[in-house]
Amino acid sequence: MRLTLLGSGDARQVPVYNCSCPACDAARVYPARRRGPCCALIECGAQRWLIDSGLTDLTERFAPHSLSGILQTHYHADHAQGLLHLRWGQGLVIPVHGPDDPEGLADLYKHPGILDFSQPFAAFERRQLGELQVAALPLTHSKPTFGYLFEGQGRRIAYLTDTVGVPEASCAELQRAPLDLLVLDCSTAPQPVAPRNHNDLTRALEVIERLQPTHAVLTHIGHAFDTWLLEHPEALPSGVSLASDGLVL
Amino acid sequence: MRLTLLGSGDARQVPVYNCSCPACDAARVYPARRRGPCCALIECGAQRWLIDSGLTDLTERFAPHSLSGILQTHYHADHAQGLLHLRWGQGLVIPVHGPDDPEGLADLYKHPGILDFSQPFAAFERRQLGELQVAALPLTHSKPTFGYLFEGQGRRIAYLTDTVGVPEASCAELQRAPLDLLVLDCSTAPQPVAPRNHNDLTRALEVIERLQPTHAVLTHIGHAFDTWLLEHPEALPSGVSLASDGLVL
Repeated sequence: MRLTLLGSGDARQVPVYNCSCPACDAARVYPARRRGPCCALIECGAQRWLIDSGLTDLTERFAPHSLSGILQTHYHADHAQGLLHLRWGQGLVIPVHGPDDPEGLADLYKHPGILDFSQPFAAFERRQLGELQVAALPLTHSKPTFGYLFEGQGRRIAYLTDTVGVPEASCAELQRAPLDLLVLDCSTAPQPVAPRNHNDLTRALEVIERLQPTHAVLTHIGHAFDTWLLEHPEALPSGVSLASDGLVL
Repeated sequence: MRLTLLGSGDARQVPVYNCSCPACDAARVYPARRRGPCCALIECGAQRWLIDSGLTDLTERFAPHSLSGILQTHYHADHAQGLLHLRWGQGLVIPVHGPDDPEGLADLYKHPGILDFSQPFAAFERRQLGELQVAALPLTHSKPTFGYLFEGQGRRIAYLTDTVGVPEASCAELQRAPLDLLVLDCSTAPQPVAPRNHNDLTRALEVIERLQPTHAVLTHIGHAFDTWLLEHPEALPSGVSLASDGLVL
């Protein structure tokens, strides 16, 4: 089972337009420091699923028939925008499984093109996709949102964005067996007031402490968190690392 | 006054994902044959306005403060998708003037970020933007849509997408004085049945015949029209030419 983090930024991405903080300036000079819209690719045997579709060059990145389908965590633009163009392909059908969000994004449901939204996940539903088992776990966000637990080839990986904390019942599912890897929303440095829609580092470390994965990777990183980390290089405990675009896990 | 056609494709763009028609295959080999989302840049003196924002790399193409603002013909995704990311910049305000469409695109109005949607055009309204005068002319499309008539430095240019035909009252405005250039929606080859939302070549040539511009350029081109034109190289009359991405007029 292989997880590739294709994008690791928050909705604003890094660099932020017209920002000259140290993180944004560095990202303009060093492409490896850039952060695109948060998304990933999970591969297991013949299965190859894109997790979120905020990248706007999906038709260039993925040859026709190279994806098994798309797993949507939710339908905010930075996680689903790439569908607006991908849908206009032809001669194939791409299943898009996500939460049952009546809004979706813009007119995607009205004009789905080659995308098939007909099989949304129910909360806590498990699906067997070839060698890959996927479970949809409710998260806490401003739109209906699922994290995904992947099990296959003897490994157990959780991908949890966008969320602040993790709901009790989803934690219970994750704690049924040891997690090899946890990829977790952590958009900001520690905040004085509890954040509403995304983890800050304080809440992210609380989740990690609770779920005890072998390894944790923080993603959905905002530019101010990147800058804060430049000033606090020892902030991440052992076993916790930072996502970067293209990172293979 | 300078008009640059940044994108000349229809909603599907060229090449269409998973299509191997002659036009799509050619576009994969020759980048000049590709067609991105339909949009343009109008420049006149110090004024520099983007017409439609379907390009998804606006923060890379346009340095902060390099645009006077954006003129939206309408809010379909292929004409407005780039705003979904551009809005998350900081430290500047970008006016976006378009039709008073209560829907807009996705959550753009709810979370406008650096975009200022507060001054939509009224039908037939004229605005003086430095040396550039702009008039908003209602078109016939499935969403509230304006074409724009630009007047400045002794030139008169009309940019009319997306539309099928041109409404009588808008024609009357356009006919008040000779047009130096008409850029017109023509998405398809001649159709046996009258199209609903976009001109086919038959309707486009009727509009051109009526408005009698010095020069007409067809844009919002679909892949099937490109293929048809390969088979009908003499289809366009004198004074009528085809848009391409990057064409400067």
